[in-house]
Amino acid sequence: MSSKPTTPKGMRDFLPHEVARRTYIMDVIKTQFEAFGFLPIQTPSMERRDILLGKYGEEGDRLVFKVLNSGEKVKKADIDALNQGQLSRFGNSLSEKALRYDLTVPLARFVVQHQNELIFPFKRYQMQSVWRADRPQHGRFQEFTQCDADAIGSDSLLLELEYIQLIDGVFKQLNLHGCTLRVNHRKVLEKIALKANANNKTTTFFTILDKLDKIGWPEVKRMFVEAGFSTAVIDTINDALSNKNEVSAQLQAIENIIFSDEENDNPAKELLFLFNSIHKLQSIKLEFDWTLARGLDYYTGAIFEIAAPDNVAVGSIGAGGRYDNLTAMFGMKDTSGIGISFGLDRIYIVLDELDLFPKELRTAIDIIVVNFDSKILTSLMPYVNALRDNGKRVLVYPHEARLKKQLSLANQLKIPQAIIVGETEWNEKSCIIKNLDTGEQRTLLLDDLA
Amino acid sequence: MSSKPTTPKGMRDFLPHEVARRTYIMDVIKTQFEAFGFLPIQTPSMERRDILLGKYGEEGDRLVFKVLNSGEKVKKADIDALNQGQLSRFGNSLSEKALRYDLTVPLARFVVQHQNELIFPFKRYQMQSVWRADRPQHGRFQEFTQCDADAIGSDSLLLELEYIQLIDGVFKQLNLHGCTLRVNHRKVLEKIALKANANNKTTTFFTILDKLDKIGWPEVKRMFVEAGFSTAVIDTINDALSNKNEVSAQLQAIENIIFSDEENDNPAKELLFLFNSIHKLQSIKLEFDWTLARGLDYYTGAIFEIAAPDNVAVGSIGAGGRYDNLTAMFGMKDTSGIGISFGLDRIYIVLDELDLFPKELRTAIDIIVVNFDSKILTSLMPYVNALRDNGKRVLVYPHEARLKKQLSLANQLKIPQAIIVGETEWNEKSCIIKNLDTGEQRTLLLDDLA
Repeated sequence: MSSKPTTPKGMRDFLPHEVARRTYIMDVIKTQFEAFGFLPIQTPSMERRDILLGKYGEEGDRLVFKVLNSGEKVKKADIDALNQGQLSRFGNSLSEKALRYDLTVPLARFVVQHQNELIFPFKRYQMQSVWRADRPQHGRFQEFTQCDADAIGSDSLLLELEYIQLIDGVFKQLNLHGCTLRVNHRKVLEKIALKANANNKTTTFFTILDKLDKIGWPEVKRMFVEAGFSTAVIDTINDALSNKNEVSAQLQAIENIIFSDEENDNPAKELLFLFNSIHKLQSIKLEFDWTLARGLDYYTGAIFEIAAPDNVAVGSIGAGGRYDNLTAMFGMKDTSGIGISFGLDRIYIVLDELDLFPKELRTAIDIIVVNFDSKILTSLMPYVNALRDNGKRVLVYPHEARLKKQLSLANQLKIPQAIIVGETEWNEKSCIIKNLDTGEQRTLLLDDLA
Repeated sequence: MSSKPTTPKGMRDFLPHEVARRTYIMDVIKTQFEAFGFLPIQTPSMERRDILLGKYGEEGDRLVFKVLNSGEKVKKADIDALNQGQLSRFGNSLSEKALRYDLTVPLARFVVQHQNELIFPFKRYQMQSVWRADRPQHGRFQEFTQCDADAIGSDSLLLELEYIQLIDGVFKQLNLHGCTLRVNHRKVLEKIALKANANNKTTTFFTILDKLDKIGWPEVKRMFVEAGFSTAVIDTINDALSNKNEVSAQLQAIENIIFSDEENDNPAKELLFLFNSIHKLQSIKLEFDWTLARGLDYYTGAIFEIAAPDNVAVGSIGAGGRYDNLTAMFGMKDTSGIGISFGLDRIYIVLDELDLFPKELRTAIDIIVVNFDSKILTSLMPYVNALRDNGKRVLVYPHEARLKKQLSLANQLKIPQAIIVGETEWNEKSCIIKNLDTGEQRTLLLDDLA
């Protein structure tokens, strides 16, 4: 092969210092998930094609990576479909399996498949790669890691409360302050649409609202009026929310939705409960955002989205919500669930840009054993292995080389200590321990080393 | 969808207790890898198709999972190839990427791609999934996890020594005794072939030898004679090895190869050095096995294979060796390397069959908070979260339910303690702590809980 070997476009290698940082984030999230009683599961990278397709909308379906059938099975290629330009159908004729697109549909499949082995309410977490055939750009990759925690089989609002505390705990532990947890509720949104006279045109209402980030309020309102919607309720809520930092403003906006209506099952009461019941948050800012109109294919209740601090342009770093019908797609009805998904790769970008990774992560090796004489080192091995048995991470320089070269490796790997055994030391059954930061050194008997 | 949703054939879900056990094995291996100075890297699940194909032999190429091109690119389908029955060429016309088949070729690609960022000798470990479109059977899966450690950029025999100690350390930590590390050396094998008059027919010699496991010695020797090879040297070595448990027998067999020959660079000397230099092994049995003829596409020096204890029929649970030309496939020459790969899934089978998993792995949750009254529990949250901040893993039963049902969940999840707060306790700002093993319970003030 003549061309330089590279990773495929949109896919990444991780060098040791990057793995250390990714592991750090995942360990924090994992610790929080376990603190809240979630247990780990894993699902295979591939799912049957029919499990995945049709669950993510037309655009999502296009982004699912299909796996080519092996061997004789490619003979089933549907050439007619190809000739007719039905590329998706052609692809399907060549592929029975696909790579998972998220962890949510596989969870639904898992819960239905294993329903008799599981105990409900079932709280699981899962931290695995997902794949999307998306155009790569900043913060968007073709392979990335999601860290999901879901609770299946209970519609208790205590779970919503716990999720808010969990999200706060993750960012507190990461020492990342200033993230905003935006909260909405599907039924509140529907109620607002009704009050704006959207009646049976709520989908149009949502579609226009979803453009807000791109086109701004004046244009959204112009389109609402054009579609025949009233904007009075919107003005009332937006006015109440005009000071977003005040919790009282949030509550006022929510109450505006409630008190203009006397129904007993007013869904805004759920939001009011959440905002009133939350114990002091230590890291995140909680914000009622009635314009949050994402994930409406799934979400039937609360909708969560986590925004990075304002000074980092990376979009959402996590999202979730309450879904009542997730397992229904596989025939298991009346099973309410709620989940959150943290985007590892984007949290990495945020911590990196804000310089929030702990400094000491880089020291993964404790000691380098310098090699002047491989024969001596061969004899030294029992002492080195005793150090390892005591939990020390020890790199033996494998061949004889100039001291400068060996210490340069130690320096680049941030190894704090060196063990040096020359002929003199070996004859005395001793060694030199050198502190590579200060240059200080002392001599120790080998028997005292471990 | 009407049919029951399932995982694809050959792919597996892992339930919480299985993830706990897999994590246990991986943590042991990871700790040993780090003790020996290996640093973690990760590579993407997909590689460019041209990186992978042609590296695993014809059979291996067939087992590589190819990923179907997305969108318009499937129009490049080579229909002529399909019509001519050239299915592999047809598949290639539809696929630019493939799922990694092992961690070794991706490592070679990684080292060449990042050679200017890496410091040599480069010791890396990598624990990730690999995929093979193989026929599923006991101990063979289409997706499985390899745990690899490789050292690139040194041909020092100290590394071979360290690998043997590392393998011993892994199985000692897993409390799995009775594994055999079979060691061979490619050049020793070639020398034996020469002595058997195989001369320029060494490939034939190796091919026949590789059938040994299936057809046994008498048939192998018959085929050797038929191919015109002498069997005298084979008898000599096998005689010396007839008592496999004796280290002296191993050394005798090796010396038989050396002393019948006066060359100075006799490769058997390397084996003699290894067998003589190894410090006491605490778990594995070391065995010279000159018939080990696997991986000869790669290996240029030492060849390792780890066999499970005799009473577990699962085949090899790890393999490795010295390779001098791995990165040469991507244009980087003269870079010697050595590596070992542990098969997580097979080690799992062995530990499971021998009942060697630690019992306490199953307790992943410390405390269940019983729910009689969601309002009380809402108010209790600050106390619960204080417990979590102190490192306790606490499952709050999310909705009100019968005590029996809640304790049944606790029992199945092996949760050792329950916190119970009824109206009486809440009014007193106290709680009942119940030991779910013994049934003992005591009352505590909530302020004293954390």
